[in-house]
Amino acid sequence: MSQNDQPIKPWGGRFTEATDAFVERFTASIGFDYRLYHHDINGSIAHATMLAKVGVLTDAERDQIIEGLEAIRAEIVAGKFNWSISLEDVHMNIEALLTQRIGITGKKLHTGRSRNDQVATDIRLYLRDEIDSIGKELTRLQTGLLDLAEREAATIMPGFTHLQTAQPVTFGHHLLAWFEMLERDYGRLQDCRKRVNQSPLGAAALAGTTYPIDRAYTAQLLGFDAPTENSLDSVSDRDFAIEFCAFASLLMMHLSRASEELVLWTSSQFSFIHLPDRFCTGSSIMPQKKNPDVPELVRGKTGRVYGHLTALLTLMKSQPLAYNKDNQEDKEPVFDAIDTVKDCLRAFADMIPAIEARKENMYEAAKRGFSTATDLADYLVRKGVPFRDAHEIVGKSVGYGVETGKDLSEMTLEELQQFSTVITDDVFKVLTLEGSVAARNHIGGTAPAQVTAAVGRARGRVAARG
Amino acid sequence: MSQNDQPIKPWGGRFTEATDAFVERFTASIGFDYRLYHHDINGSIAHATMLAKVGVLTDAERDQIIEGLEAIRAEIVAGKFNWSISLEDVHMNIEALLTQRIGITGKKLHTGRSRNDQVATDIRLYLRDEIDSIGKELTRLQTGLLDLAEREAATIMPGFTHLQTAQPVTFGHHLLAWFEMLERDYGRLQDCRKRVNQSPLGAAALAGTTYPIDRAYTAQLLGFDAPTENSLDSVSDRDFAIEFCAFASLLMMHLSRASEELVLWTSSQFSFIHLPDRFCTGSSIMPQKKNPDVPELVRGKTGRVYGHLTALLTLMKSQPLAYNKDNQEDKEPVFDAIDTVKDCLRAFADMIPAIEARKENMYEAAKRGFSTATDLADYLVRKGVPFRDAHEIVGKSVGYGVETGKDLSEMTLEELQQFSTVITDDVFKVLTLEGSVAARNHIGGTAPAQVTAAVGRARGRVAARG
Amino acid sequence: MSQNDQPIKPWGGRFTEATDAFVERFTASIGFDYRLYHHDINGSIAHATMLAKVGVLTDAERDQIIEGLEAIRAEIVAGKFNWSISLEDVHMNIEALLTQRIGITGKKLHTGRSRNDQVATDIRLYLRDEIDSIGKELTRLQTGLLDLAEREAATIMPGFTHLQTAQPVTFGHHLLAWFEMLERDYGRLQDCRKRVNQSPLGAAALAGTTYPIDRAYTAQLLGFDAPTENSLDSVSDRDFAIEFCAFASLLMMHLSRASEELVLWTSSQFSFIHLPDRFCTGSSIMPQKKNPDVPELVRGKTGRVYGHLTALLTLMKSQPLAYNKDNQEDKEPVFDAIDTVKDCLRAFADMIPAIEARKENMYEAAKRGFSTATDLADYLVRKGVPFRDAHEIVGKSVGYGVETGKDLSEMTLEELQQFSTVITDDVFKVLTLEGSVAARNHIGGTAPAQVTAAVGRARGRVAARG
Amino acid sequence: MSQNDQPIKPWGGRFTEATDAFVERFTASIGFDYRLYHHDINGSIAHATMLAKVGVLTDAERDQIIEGLEAIRAEIVAGKFNWSISLEDVHMNIEALLTQRIGITGKKLHTGRSRNDQVATDIRLYLRDEIDSIGKELTRLQTGLLDLAEREAATIMPGFTHLQTAQPVTFGHHLLAWFEMLERDYGRLQDCRKRVNQSPLGAAALAGTTYPIDRAYTAQLLGFDAPTENSLDSVSDRDFAIEFCAFASLLMMHLSRASEELVLWTSSQFSFIHLPDRFCTGSSIMPQKKNPDVPELVRGKTGRVYGHLTALLTLMKSQPLAYNKDNQEDKEPVFDAIDTVKDCLRAFADMIPAIEARKENMYEAAKRGFSTATDLADYLVRKGVPFRDAHEIVGKSVGYGVETGKDLSEMTLEELQQFSTVITDDVFKVLTLEGSVAARNHIGGTAPAQVTAAVGRARGRVAARG
Repeated sequence: MSQNDQPIKPWGGRFTEATDAFVERFTASIGFDYRLYHHDINGSIAHATMLAKVGVLTDAERDQIIEGLEAIRAEIVAGKFNWSISLEDVHMNIEALLTQRIGITGKKLHTGRSRNDQVATDIRLYLRDEIDSIGKELTRLQTGLLDLAEREAATIMPGFTHLQTAQPVTFGHHLLAWFEMLERDYGRLQDCRKRVNQSPLGAAALAGTTYPIDRAYTAQLLGFDAPTENSLDSVSDRDFAIEFCAFASLLMMHLSRASEELVLWTSSQFSFIHLPDRFCTGSSIMPQKKNPDVPELVRGKTGRVYGHLTALLTLMKSQPLAYNKDNQEDKEPVFDAIDTVKDCLRAFADMIPAIEARKENMYEAAKRGFSTATDLADYLVRKGVPFRDAHEIVGKSVGYGVETGKDLSEMTLEELQQFSTVITDDVFKVLTLEGSVAARNHIGGTAPAQVTAAVGRARGRVAARG
Repeated sequence: MSQNDQPIKPWGGRFTEATDAFVERFTASIGFDYRLYHHDINGSIAHATMLAKVGVLTDAERDQIIEGLEAIRAEIVAGKFNWSISLEDVHMNIEALLTQRIGITGKKLHTGRSRNDQVATDIRLYLRDEIDSIGKELTRLQTGLLDLAEREAATIMPGFTHLQTAQPVTFGHHLLAWFEMLERDYGRLQDCRKRVNQSPLGAAALAGTTYPIDRAYTAQLLGFDAPTENSLDSVSDRDFAIEFCAFASLLMMHLSRASEELVLWTSSQFSFIHLPDRFCTGSSIMPQKKNPDVPELVRGKTGRVYGHLTALLTLMKSQPLAYNKDNQEDKEPVFDAIDTVKDCLRAFADMIPAIEARKENMYEAAKRGFSTATDLADYLVRKGVPFRDAHEIVGKSVGYGVETGKDLSEMTLEELQQFSTVITDDVFKVLTLEGSVAARNHIGGTAPAQVTAAVGRARGRVAARG
Repeated sequence: MSQNDQPIKPWGGRFTEATDAFVERFTASIGFDYRLYHHDINGSIAHATMLAKVGVLTDAERDQIIEGLEAIRAEIVAGKFNWSISLEDVHMNIEALLTQRIGITGKKLHTGRSRNDQVATDIRLYLRDEIDSIGKELTRLQTGLLDLAEREAATIMPGFTHLQTAQPVTFGHHLLAWFEMLERDYGRLQDCRKRVNQSPLGAAALAGTTYPIDRAYTAQLLGFDAPTENSLDSVSDRDFAIEFCAFASLLMMHLSRASEELVLWTSSQFSFIHLPDRFCTGSSIMPQKKNPDVPELVRGKTGRVYGHLTALLTLMKSQPLAYNKDNQEDKEPVFDAIDTVKDCLRAFADMIPAIEARKENMYEAAKRGFSTATDLADYLVRKGVPFRDAHEIVGKSVGYGVETGKDLSEMTLEELQQFSTVITDDVFKVLTLEGSVAARNHIGGTAPAQVTAAVGRARGRVAARG
Repeated sequence: MSQNDQPIKPWGGRFTEATDAFVERFTASIGFDYRLYHHDINGSIAHATMLAKVGVLTDAERDQIIEGLEAIRAEIVAGKFNWSISLEDVHMNIEALLTQRIGITGKKLHTGRSRNDQVATDIRLYLRDEIDSIGKELTRLQTGLLDLAEREAATIMPGFTHLQTAQPVTFGHHLLAWFEMLERDYGRLQDCRKRVNQSPLGAAALAGTTYPIDRAYTAQLLGFDAPTENSLDSVSDRDFAIEFCAFASLLMMHLSRASEELVLWTSSQFSFIHLPDRFCTGSSIMPQKKNPDVPELVRGKTGRVYGHLTALLTLMKSQPLAYNKDNQEDKEPVFDAIDTVKDCLRAFADMIPAIEARKENMYEAAKRGFSTATDLADYLVRKGVPFRDAHEIVGKSVGYGVETGKDLSEMTLEELQQFSTVITDDVFKVLTLEGSVAARNHIGGTAPAQVTAAVGRARGRVAARG
């Protein structure tokens, strides 16, 4: 990136002193907004097309502009474009070259618009495309979860609350919990897209323009759902950036929860799953280590996305209308949130199908910890004991088990009957892990049959995304 | 609130030592979750009704439970209920009294559910009702803005960018910018409501239950759209709290922007509006002061809502499934965000209709600052000058104006022609404020006719809320 | 709390309309700032004493004021004071009663000060006292950690990186890591105290006062280190609140890390420690559960403190000087951060001494996972193998171990020699856990001797707090 | 940056599968941590020097390593170093080249350390140097403020509370309020430095090392105050990063407040100061605009620094000891916070001396708004009226002034006497702006003499920084 090579500012007229060189660098955005070039060119082409339709440009001028812009696009793609800090931003860099190439007609492109509505248009177009990419990657990850959940619909593992063994669940059921989190994220992403996909083009600097522009036409050309309703709002609104980062924060929070579990499950203490070496790295000093770097790093990246949300909320707090220079700070958090989310989704979507359950370890762990205590309580209730009393009977049986080192299923009938005489021989079938999970056989329950049914319904929802 | 008066814990069975008194207070939630009593009772009634439908309770038991719960509700409303810290939370406080009153049948109410799904149900019901209240208050505020905007559709004021006079706008147009911000907030609130209004009841502790419950039936009884899909997710999901706080943060950000402008506009330097005394307070030491306390305080309260969003995102980060005690911390931020948002909306909805525009001051300010410079540039473009050249011509005219202390409209034709010979007599009508705003006559533009049309469309959208 | 019972405002003179009743409630702070009464009275007494010293009050007036204030303090302590919302805040509530009691002299108390410097003084005095309480509780917790660390100086457990077994460490060493975190917190707390302990009294509304006040004297009377240097800054500065919340956030972060480990260690999978029943609670549905509620809740409370920091930073962003009503929002976050930190420290200080190490489980876990692999590598280096080569040799040995199910110490010499012929009989003593920890015998290392020495140094630092 | 060009991992031994290419890029840190190269090399040189001192390396080996590292440093400085993603980070990139160059001796450098203590050392060294740079730039800015404050010690402007005219103050006094904010920031920066400047080198992976290292010696060689006390803490501690970002957040908050005021003061409505063109930019569409971009952008950048603080607090929440991959995310927030703070300080330090006060405008504004009302109240008190009564008398006088359009100083004695008969001819000298500011003549007050004295004391404090 070069400085001072193209000294003409788009606003130099009333200034008597050149911008300070440090200030020029400090206030320039080209270092990060060059990323918008593709959408900036698309926006300019739509604007030129509209200007020709309403008679502000001739068709020949329009064509000359479009041709010039397409040539510039090709140069940028080919890495041959020389971005200049003196030209401040992506908009002026492209327009300056266009004017240098096609002369006076290039100067007409900016008729009836301002950088304020131009940048708002660019970032919405850019974000819309990224939302669509993210939606696809989310779908890929969710599909991987459904495949794995289906395969592991009957695999028994301990379900935890407070990280204490609570009740046996199926591994497929656990994976579907992750699916549901992501399903809400997908919904929020689509809701956000609705509000992103509105066209601010034509708001000009803040008040609209005196040219006979056709905002509905540019909105349509760019695939927007409609033009925005108010010009002051259009140039100062950054809700879409914040709403996207709120979506991204919730998504990362969900991935951090799944990551935490993957880290736990790959520890020696749990040893519930195997992660292939290609998702792990080692230690420079401890030769035995195999570290679950991918989930750890995803968990860590949660922080940066939360940080971007904080940054944007802080940025917009108390800003008077309409555009202020502060708003230039909207881009980097959004760009980094997009990159982070895409990378983390990709890492997860690649990794999930490669997870191998260590079924025996899961099963053994479920057997420990009196995980069928609730089943015993429910058994007592079916025999007529009020729930709160049944709870107390089982509590005492567990106390006995802790003392004697016996699981409930390992006690004799006599031992169990110490605590309640309503217990009979039929108790033992409710104390098995298989019996326990199979009995939770209602919508949302952990029974293998319910998991399979839930996968089916989920596949339907994913397929309906179109 | 009393401690130690009702010592029986719902989970005492396996414990050999009483809870430490400080720990009891530290871990109790009754100090804030008593607020959920109304929805807790509604949830319990629906649960009992379902249990009777599926045959777990008899109709007589159901009726006894419902009657007991309604009696307790009446006592709470009447302020006669004695909440106990030893009973930890709203759920156990109510259930313990129910059992004390109706005996063994009270103990049966908890069959097939857990506090984990119970609290998730309560908070969703509570939040749904508050969302509806907030929606109504938002509508009241938006309607006030539309009324004021309509009245002030043709009132001219300076439009600012960078807090520098940019172009004249109409006051009605400015108010509609605020309306649009709130319109997006309303949309986000409704999108949030969809995801709140799902029934977790029946997820039990984490895995579902072995009783033949009917989750669709309880969902329907409580006005939920559907039961949730996964029990592990149901008891650990707090997305709704975060999504609500993200909505609330954006709303407060918008109110902080409007507040900032109200504070500016009531300063001596701007003096654009008059706020009635009833929305202001004075100083204990400076007898002349009349401070815009309401907008200042609303602006300040933005911080606490952002803080609650941060709190909840932090809370949920990296939590393994399913329920953890950490989640008890979900309530206070949501409760305070609800209270804050409702108070701030009420303050604004009361205050907006009372705003009096100081039209002369607004008009005078718009005349200062060369606010019609863009109109002169557009005039030149219509005469065939390329936009970028026109910009430079006007820049030089403004420089001359700064030097000589003359606004553009105060220069003679000869003076203007120094900078471009294409300028003729017809220039003066584009340099008036009225001409400037009227010329921005397209959708979203500041022309009075557009403001009136926009108010009409907005009224239609508000009316459609039903 | 009553509304409208004492209608006279301290600033009513220029107002022609009463404050709106909702606005009155909305803008009142008495609902939370009543907490400052003790320090408000102390501040007023110091102010009156100084006014008498400089001749603005007579000695008799001073004594009458002090007597009146002390009587009010006694009433507040006794719970007999009737706080009024109409009187807005703690300052006016107290002053109004004083004037009602002692007449015209009461009105003289406010001479030469304003609520702006009064509240800044009160909150600094309050915070200083709470800092001192928190410091004491931190010291109690740290002392508990030192006692436990000393007791467990030689207890071997696995040290983890990436939650994978890395190298054996001693439990005492691990506890000292927590101590060090808290040691930095203690340092930050004292650094914060320096900046809190400056007297803003005398800054008056914003510019100082025309009375011949003696700020150094009031500073000294109130135990402040010095008067603040600038009156505008004095009434608008809220750094102390933010800095305190930054301290509190770091402290909570540390407690969240310790909590996470306590939760892991009490899980069936780790089972490294036993927490007495009095720090745990059970489940209303799963009779076997014993949940580590205290560390879970502390971990969860991290969120609220982070949230308060966010709230205060947001609050102060972009505020023009000097005092703005926004600043009323400074108190609740600070109060809640103080309460939270004190409760969490108390819970930890009570709980730490009650932790019982399950030494056998720790030891067994350390043996698993090739925790002495680094020791083997170091052994090879001592025999002349470059570190990076040694690393590779050990990596291959571990791979063999994974395949054959043997720990390094369980392989025969022949097996080990497959990977390097420099290995001889003396290798086995470096492969024991005891040998491994004892060998890390330098400052900061995990050797039992180092742990004991570190405890000694730490006791010295704690003792020096005085 | 190249991928796959140097395939040998430092931990490949036990792995049977190559790292996934995307995972390799995803987990690599070389994209940002290359910045640490200078301090990484310094750390390695100190480590090698110590290893030779304790006999682990020969002097010849040490010299070979140092020479090799210095050659690599020179290549990096010259831009000739080819960073490789396959080598993950700055540490391995440098070490790999060293070994390639000097053979087997290069492999010995890593003896007795790990990347865990190496990176902790690097980032502390880096941060310490940046803290010193920031300290210098803070001092430059503060000195500029003192110079300007001294020049403007007697310039009168309105002092505001609630953005309403409160009392006249001097411009120099206002600037000193900014100085005081920065003075606290400077103190916090130095307090942070103490905790940064501790040497973690020798903590190795987590537990220390079996080599006879001398940690005090490496600490001394690197200019650290002391070695850290606990190895587990040393590799997992990131407090310094958070504490630095907390400092940076407070500093940015202060700059945002000053920026807000600069933006207000350059608006047409205030017009209190002139900012030279070189600190401003224009508009691409509105030829008359001159925007205060620098303060606006600084204000906007507050958000990103708050965001980094949030990111780091989130990152560290609930992490179990010792090192986790999450911690790799510590660097980018710190790097960006450093860059942002340095740029913003530079922008302010350049801009402050260039501010020109528009003294007439300031004076006129101070005259408006009854800014001497407090002086009238104080006058009445001196005549024996209790303060609260005086307040009411002045309130009524102001009400009369609002009605009649007269300032207090413009009323006749008869008019004033309507409200209190104690008013006599001598009142008029307390109603002048000059009299008002001169009367606030105590430490911290706005009197010109106090401003000059305060500048003198402040220069002393700055000079003492040494």
